[in-house]
Amino acid sequence: MARKTAPDSSRRSERSRRAILDAALELVGEVGFGKLTIEAIAARAGVGKQTIYRWWPSKAAVLFDSFLEQSGGAGAEITLLDTGDIVADAKDVLRATVDTMDDPKYALPTRALIAESQSDPELGAEVNARVLEPQLAAWTGRLRAAQEAGQIAPDADLRVAVEMLVGPIFHRWSLRTLPMSHAYADAIVDQVLGGIAMPPAPTPAPVATPGPTDS
Amino acid sequence: MARKTAPDSSRRSERSRRAILDAALELVGEVGFGKLTIEAIAARAGVGKQTIYRWWPSKAAVLFDSFLEQSGGAGAEITLLDTGDIVADAKDVLRATVDTMDDPKYALPTRALIAESQSDPELGAEVNARVLEPQLAAWTGRLRAAQEAGQIAPDADLRVAVEMLVGPIFHRWSLRTLPMSHAYADAIVDQVLGGIAMPPAPTPAPVATPGPTDS
Repeated sequence: MARKTAPDSSRRSERSRRAILDAALELVGEVGFGKLTIEAIAARAGVGKQTIYRWWPSKAAVLFDSFLEQSGGAGAEITLLDTGDIVADAKDVLRATVDTMDDPKYALPTRALIAESQSDPELGAEVNARVLEPQLAAWTGRLRAAQEAGQIAPDADLRVAVEMLVGPIFHRWSLRTLPMSHAYADAIVDQVLGGIAMPPAPTPAPVATPGPTDS
Repeated sequence: MARKTAPDSSRRSERSRRAILDAALELVGEVGFGKLTIEAIAARAGVGKQTIYRWWPSKAAVLFDSFLEQSGGAGAEITLLDTGDIVADAKDVLRATVDTMDDPKYALPTRALIAESQSDPELGAEVNARVLEPQLAAWTGRLRAAQEAGQIAPDADLRVAVEMLVGPIFHRWSLRTLPMSHAYADAIVDQVLGGIAMPPAPTPAPVATPGPTDS
């Protein structure tokens, strides 16, 4: 029997890699992070344990790659849509976030990592560095472009603004206080941009008074 | 030996009740909600198991009373400070929230409940109904008073505004993305009220034109 050629072997590797990433994501949603094992991932993916250990040092490392795969691929820099209209673009991204968080494929593993991170700050720090901060940085970048285009006030704190956009979504999703919706995403964007304070009363038109003339 | 008089017995009951509530809060922070038992609460509080079962049907019920005790007592309606200045009052409340969330006595049990609620939506719903929603309702009430006083735009969505205030705090605390601070609380309030959009250019002063006179 002929030995496998390189292209075949590489296709087979890619198939195994995908199967492992999918299995890790499914399993952590089913059993939680604490009970997730490399053995179970290998069994679900139909590969040997040694195949996983050849590519990843730990179950956490497998999981992070599973999440990164979903948000554009490991190592890929995330950038947000920029049509020049910050309100429309922010609504697009936040609506997509609502859809993703409502999808059990993504929601269950995310809940498992959040639950575990509550009592394991080191895991939480890894999740932040590998998965969350690149997304927050992409938001900050998009807001900075809007600021440079004169659509956002020059003294606005952009990091705080990002947390005002994603924080309400995360609060409602994580605590399940109310259903999420595109209308919720839109209302957040409108109020983050426009504020909720009563707009200042229009300045009264200056009373025309005779003044010194210009020469 | 004389039998205990009623006042003594009532004082002793109150002492036991406080010991039980404190023990439940400490223990859930130490071992998590899943491993919390009525037996362990009784042992830590120095009371018999039957004393706890006489007053509470479950460990969750004990815990909710522990949280309510901290936020003003079970059954007490929560209202927020109203000095007439919504910006100052909101900063006061949000700074206090930052301080509470940074206090391990409150933070550890809260993290334990949040972790458990991720995979137990029924527990999450109870936490919301008993502990969280009364606090969100108090915020909404304070914003409504400001709206009636003409400080908040009449068309602002107050529920979304509340989540824009507490969501960023919860996001940063729960995910430990950055340290919390009073400056963070202040920035959130300022940007939620004022918005981050570039203020519209001032309307040019109307050109004085001769108009119809008033009689």
